[in-house]
Amino acid sequence: MSLAQSLFAPRAVALIGASGDKTRNTARPQRFLRKHGFAGKIFPVNATRNEVLGEKAYPSVTDVAGEIDHAFIMVDDVEGALEACGAKGVTVASIFSDGFADAGAEGMARQRRLVERARALGVRLLGPNSMGVINLSGRVALTVNAVLEMDSPPAGGASMVSQSGTMLGTVLSRGAARGLGFSKLVSVGNESDLGVGELVELLAADPETRTILLFLETVRDAVRLAAGARAAHAAGKPVVAYKLGRSKLGERLARSHTGALAGDDAALDAYFRDCGIVRVDLLETLLEIGPLLEGRKPPELARTPRVAVVTTTGGGAASVVDRLGMLGIETASPDSESPIVDLTMGRKSASYGAVVEELLAFPGCDAVLAVVGSSAQFHPQLAVDPILAAKRGAKPLAAFLTPHAEKSLALLAQAGIAAFRTPEACADAFHGFFSWKTPREEKLESPGEWPKDVPVKGKLTEVQALTLFAALGIPVVESAIARAPDYAHSLPYPVAAKIVSAGIAHKSDVGGVVLGISSRPDFEEKIRSIAKGDNPILVQKMATGLAEAIVGYRDDPVVGPLVMVGAGGILAELYNDVVLRLAPVDEASALEMIGQVKGFAALRGYRGLPPGNVQALGRAVAALSRLALIEGRPVREAEANPVIVGARGAVAVDALVALKEDGRE
Amino acid sequence: MSLAQSLFAPRAVALIGASGDKTRNTARPQRFLRKHGFAGKIFPVNATRNEVLGEKAYPSVTDVAGEIDHAFIMVDDVEGALEACGAKGVTVASIFSDGFADAGAEGMARQRRLVERARALGVRLLGPNSMGVINLSGRVALTVNAVLEMDSPPAGGASMVSQSGTMLGTVLSRGAARGLGFSKLVSVGNESDLGVGELVELLAADPETRTILLFLETVRDAVRLAAGARAAHAAGKPVVAYKLGRSKLGERLARSHTGALAGDDAALDAYFRDCGIVRVDLLETLLEIGPLLEGRKPPELARTPRVAVVTTTGGGAASVVDRLGMLGIETASPDSESPIVDLTMGRKSASYGAVVEELLAFPGCDAVLAVVGSSAQFHPQLAVDPILAAKRGAKPLAAFLTPHAEKSLALLAQAGIAAFRTPEACADAFHGFFSWKTPREEKLESPGEWPKDVPVKGKLTEVQALTLFAALGIPVVESAIARAPDYAHSLPYPVAAKIVSAGIAHKSDVGGVVLGISSRPDFEEKIRSIAKGDNPILVQKMATGLAEAIVGYRDDPVVGPLVMVGAGGILAELYNDVVLRLAPVDEASALEMIGQVKGFAALRGYRGLPPGNVQALGRAVAALSRLALIEGRPVREAEANPVIVGARGAVAVDALVALKEDGRE
Repeated sequence: MSLAQSLFAPRAVALIGASGDKTRNTARPQRFLRKHGFAGKIFPVNATRNEVLGEKAYPSVTDVAGEIDHAFIMVDDVEGALEACGAKGVTVASIFSDGFADAGAEGMARQRRLVERARALGVRLLGPNSMGVINLSGRVALTVNAVLEMDSPPAGGASMVSQSGTMLGTVLSRGAARGLGFSKLVSVGNESDLGVGELVELLAADPETRTILLFLETVRDAVRLAAGARAAHAAGKPVVAYKLGRSKLGERLARSHTGALAGDDAALDAYFRDCGIVRVDLLETLLEIGPLLEGRKPPELARTPRVAVVTTTGGGAASVVDRLGMLGIETASPDSESPIVDLTMGRKSASYGAVVEELLAFPGCDAVLAVVGSSAQFHPQLAVDPILAAKRGAKPLAAFLTPHAEKSLALLAQAGIAAFRTPEACADAFHGFFSWKTPREEKLESPGEWPKDVPVKGKLTEVQALTLFAALGIPVVESAIARAPDYAHSLPYPVAAKIVSAGIAHKSDVGGVVLGISSRPDFEEKIRSIAKGDNPILVQKMATGLAEAIVGYRDDPVVGPLVMVGAGGILAELYNDVVLRLAPVDEASALEMIGQVKGFAALRGYRGLPPGNVQALGRAVAALSRLALIEGRPVREAEANPVIVGARGAVAVDALVALKEDGRE
Repeated sequence: MSLAQSLFAPRAVALIGASGDKTRNTARPQRFLRKHGFAGKIFPVNATRNEVLGEKAYPSVTDVAGEIDHAFIMVDDVEGALEACGAKGVTVASIFSDGFADAGAEGMARQRRLVERARALGVRLLGPNSMGVINLSGRVALTVNAVLEMDSPPAGGASMVSQSGTMLGTVLSRGAARGLGFSKLVSVGNESDLGVGELVELLAADPETRTILLFLETVRDAVRLAAGARAAHAAGKPVVAYKLGRSKLGERLARSHTGALAGDDAALDAYFRDCGIVRVDLLETLLEIGPLLEGRKPPELARTPRVAVVTTTGGGAASVVDRLGMLGIETASPDSESPIVDLTMGRKSASYGAVVEELLAFPGCDAVLAVVGSSAQFHPQLAVDPILAAKRGAKPLAAFLTPHAEKSLALLAQAGIAAFRTPEACADAFHGFFSWKTPREEKLESPGEWPKDVPVKGKLTEVQALTLFAALGIPVVESAIARAPDYAHSLPYPVAAKIVSAGIAHKSDVGGVVLGISSRPDFEEKIRSIAKGDNPILVQKMATGLAEAIVGYRDDPVVGPLVMVGAGGILAELYNDVVLRLAPVDEASALEMIGQVKGFAALRGYRGLPPGNVQALGRAVAALSRLALIEGRPVREAEANPVIVGARGAVAVDALVALKEDGRE
């Protein structure tokens, strides 16, 4: 049986460690499978009992007659259970038991051994520390999550992969209360074998899944998840992620909770965007956004997105519109005098349904929002029914209902119309939709040759770093090496002088840099402080320009190669005014990044200042990003700071490169 | 009968324009009053019928025998109805009818006439465009809001004043679904007479009201609302506001919707803070925050606030903790190895209730958050009951339940424990609690004498503006006036030279400023370009320092006098790096403001830079803010930009003052 079938629709399951005490968590899988009408065979495995909850129990999986597709392991002796699964030829084992990567270094080693053994035995693993798998249309409730105490949760087209087992219950129960159904829900636990990326691939190929939702605390395999996201995109299935670890505090908690790096949030943001994964800000948006994306493609608008709004409540509509504005989204209205169509003002006699259809057909907007006030609770015929009845086309339609109106939410869910409980989730979903990008195609331009005189291991001096930058195609400032005893050089003044050393990153912090040397006597005077012993001096032409930029590259341990551009000086740091993308980027993407740096207002001709050559800066960003294409990716981090941007060009005056094998490791 | 009694607990109400057609909005007040068991007398008034919904109807209010405390006007002829109310001696009339300030300039004039007449008649007005008043414990359902189709909404201690009538239904219905009750709910409509501020005063004096919630689109009377907020503070009742208009789009919509200025959001933020009003970011927080604040005082912590967390779900807790981190709140835990107490890891055998009590007693935290996963829905005995049973003290306790668990939410509500449906509202509420300030006391320091040679009307030149600044106590750069024909002055070089003109705000944009003049010959050369005709020249010593600041004052049309300090140059504008407070401020407050400006990192000794004299800058901010104390408040706007801050002092080098009567009006 295929992995997907064994995982989501097994014909026979073994419950290893099934408890006969109904109140125990370990009794739940058996109770839930029966309660929700599992059609396959169930084999409780319990070494100390012949019978569990009225069903025959087996001492070991190997004692069961017939094939077993999926085992659910709930015992402490996971290793023993795995051996039995291997002997029995079980396709996949989901492991609820913990004490592996979730439990420090020893647990991590135990997990490594477990996975190695599972590979040898040919058993795929979900977990450890997994709450299991739910397949609603398939009536598979192979989980310990208490949510399945509920009767008949509705089935639907959204599937979820979660690093938190609890979240299966959260979305299922909240969805059920308002008619939002699910297809598959998977708790991945520690992802020792089956990870989020592979599950997204399986769901991309699953005919019942129409949208894929991710609840993430970390990203353990960025390459595989990127591949999964591409597969989902190719299959026309949007992927949406809610990811924790956006604050330092959240990062620390995710690390302590998952035993994995949480990852730098800005890097993950760039990663999701470039993988075509929609990232949402609010947890509830993850539940509610599905119908807004389902069956649609990334809008890729070249201008500010516009939403047309019809409402029966001014205040209710304003609560969404205000939030849309905060997220950079505008409104559009066929009524020139008002930004929205408010049926309590202006067009009082218009029918709600006619306005919804008018807006859906209105070419000035990219999406339509229908807001309904108190009537949504007790008088759905007034505004909810007209939304349901509206003739829809390709344009997204969403509803926000201000009162507690679960029945109306369910009606909208059944009709496949995105409906929101809060103005914030509604605006967040629109923002997610409009930010949604097609997975980026990497332009495989050649990175150029690695210069012969620059090592690929050990520490690089600034001179070597500048040589590497020049080889990549980054304009670097005219430089020369001046050596003892006379420190002669042929550069015209004014110049700057720096010590040449591989060990010092922030030379200016240790007094290793002298700027604005105006003449030879000035030079001789000023280099005294930095020319110690007979170390050589790096002499550079003083570059002047309109603005300073920082351009960086980092091979991130979580998401891989990234390129960064930001405002120079202390602005990047104080205001976090930097933009990141997965590397490599082409020049067009680099220019888009530059356009998002606020501090470059000066370069863009702000307040009549002369504009700078952003194209040249863009070329430098693209060039540095090509470090990602060098075989073996020897560079861990690289930074040109500052790059001086002038009216005619951009030039790097300071270069720093850290290799992965830098001699410290 | 008092205004409060007539408004909230009338003995007799007249329903002017009551409809006999049950499906009409105008039939609702009568239906709802009866449905919810109003104990007083109801008099339908309808000129065309003797009977309305089975009750005797009257052609006019004046035809009713006996007193009427409160009339609800639903007819187009509001003026006629008001005359009848006046004749009858009605205390307060709530007006549902619209077509007043909500309907352009003509409507505004109509409203003005209506209010004038009401004053003459001695009738207080709620509205027009009001959805009415609800008093749950008093069984007064005097409203057209459909929400009262519901049976028995629960009563509670929170009262709400809303500029959106719909929001009465929103909070009532959502609250009812989870056992959160209300006391009074008032839809203020256009606030022609009874405004938000006066209603807050009435609720501050209302024995049943324990917290006051505001849904605002604008602030129409900032002085009255500030007084109301102070009264509420004195009565120990927290005031919480959700205000729209945070984006330009929202501002524009609020203006078009309310016919009033929405107000600059940063100014309103400063206003709420200084009035002791807690501002929430999310709509749902307004509903949920009450129990977190009730009976408490502003915490006024001098350090970063800390929340201790206990949870049965790692992912659920992380979703709140991550958000708390984004809002600048930390966690604290008695377990040094983990930032939270996660009962699925570490302390597996601990009892939930014991941990809650331990955290409430733990001196390292300022509040406790109890997170409950899937068990909250079907097994409340596991973690919800222990929260209910925990012995509580003064420390705030809040719960976040991850599943759909309305019964558990209701149990927590009944016990007065703040409980949240979303991680974001939970974190927003904690942020609101920790940001909560005691209403600020204005220090009435003398603003000094208005200088004799500076007019209080017309346009001020920069010389006059500098004179005014100096009189307020702001150090200004040493200056002199140089006049034709020889433009002599006695300042030492280097100097700057500026044209002196009252009409030009941005002199440097028109080439009216020359900086860095090094000598007398340089001066004579350079002033040629600006010395046209025989206009005088302002000569100033060139000031140098460590950083530039902008210090501003504005008499805001919505919230009144404000003082602002921000990073100089283009930083204030590009990064919105400014901090606002209501003016005046004392030096301590000014220093607190300065501490919040990111761009002043340099002044604070960032990266080993020499620290600047922030005290001197603080004195300048406090001095400029004292413009708010000058009789008649003649100044509309004033700005010192830049103020040069050095190691020893701070000096204003550019001054701009706009008077209210500037000759343009």
